[in-house]
Amino acid sequence: MQAIQDHYPAEFSHCYGCGPANPHGFHLKSYIDGERTHARFTPASMYSGGYPGNVYGGMLASLLDCHGTASAAAFAYRAQSRVMGDGGPPIRFVTGSLKVDYRRPTPLGVELLIEGTLCSLEGRKAVIDLTLSAGGEVCVTGVMVAVQFVAKA
Amino acid sequence: MQAIQDHYPAEFSHCYGCGPANPHGFHLKSYIDGERTHARFTPASMYSGGYPGNVYGGMLASLLDCHGTASAAAFAYRAQSRVMGDGGPPIRFVTGSLKVDYRRPTPLGVELLIEGTLCSLEGRKAVIDLTLSAGGEVCVTGVMVAVQFVAKA
Repeated sequence: MQAIQDHYPAEFSHCYGCGPANPHGFHLKSYIDGERTHARFTPASMYSGGYPGNVYGGMLASLLDCHGTASAAAFAYRAQSRVMGDGGPPIRFVTGSLKVDYRRPTPLGVELLIEGTLCSLEGRKAVIDLTLSAGGEVCVTGVMVAVQFVAKA
Repeated sequence: MQAIQDHYPAEFSHCYGCGPANPHGFHLKSYIDGERTHARFTPASMYSGGYPGNVYGGMLASLLDCHGTASAAAFAYRAQSRVMGDGGPPIRFVTGSLKVDYRRPTPLGVELLIEGTLCSLEGRKAVIDLTLSAGGEVCVTGVMVAVQFVAKA
C-alpha cells in the first residue's frame, strides 16, 4: 500500500521529515483509512529529551507537522472525490501554523502512533486535529492549519 | 561565555536539540542579553523542506522549542535575582505547549537567529514569545508555555 507521501510530486518530495526523495531523513509514511489518517514511527534512542528515556520535543513536533500536511492532502483529495496519483493536478499542503500540546512524557524505544482527523476544509485552508500516542496513551496533541500550496508558474 | 544550556544539571542535559551531554544532537546554544535571549544556528542542507532550499518545519519547531525552554530558565533565574551556576537549586523548564506560525519560507544555507522575550512568569509557568529570522527577515514566530520541572524525589 502506497503512503500519502509516495504520491507527492517529485519536485516537492525533499522534506527531511517525510520526503521520499530525501536520502537522510525520517521518511515518515502516512496513510488514510476512513475518517482518520495514521503513521507509525519509532525514534532512535539518540532523539532523547533533556531527561533520558523520553523523546525530545522537536521530534514530536516534526512528526505532527509532517503527518498533518500529509493528512490535509489526503482529505483534500477525498473532498474532491479524487484518488492520489490519478494523473490530475497534484494537491500539496504546507503548514501555516502548528500548536503542539505536550501532555505527558513520550517514551523512547516504543512505536509511536500519529493520527489525524479533519476538523475543517475551506478553500485552500485545512484544519487538522492530531494526536500522538505510545502504547495506547495519548502523549501529545496538536492542531494544524495547513494551506494548499500553489506552485508559482 | 557559557550558554544557558551549559548550566543545565547533568541529569537533564541529554536533549537532542540542545543537550551538551547528547553526542549526536544539534547542541543549540542560547544566551541572555538584557530583555532578550538569542541563539544562532545554521541547519545543514539535508534539513530541507518539501521544496529544496527551504528548512523543513520540524527543524524550525525544534529550534523554537529548545530555545524557548532555555529562555524560560534564564528569565526565571533573573526574576529570582540569581545567576545560573550559582550552586543553588537548578531551575529547568519543559514545554507545556508550543504554537508555531510559519510566516514565510526559511532559507537553507543561512545562519538563523532565534530570539525570545518573556511575556509572563507566574509560579511555575512562563510564557515566552519567540521569533526566528534569516537575514533580518522574520520567517517564523512562536509562543511557548513552559512549565518549571520539579524532579521527583
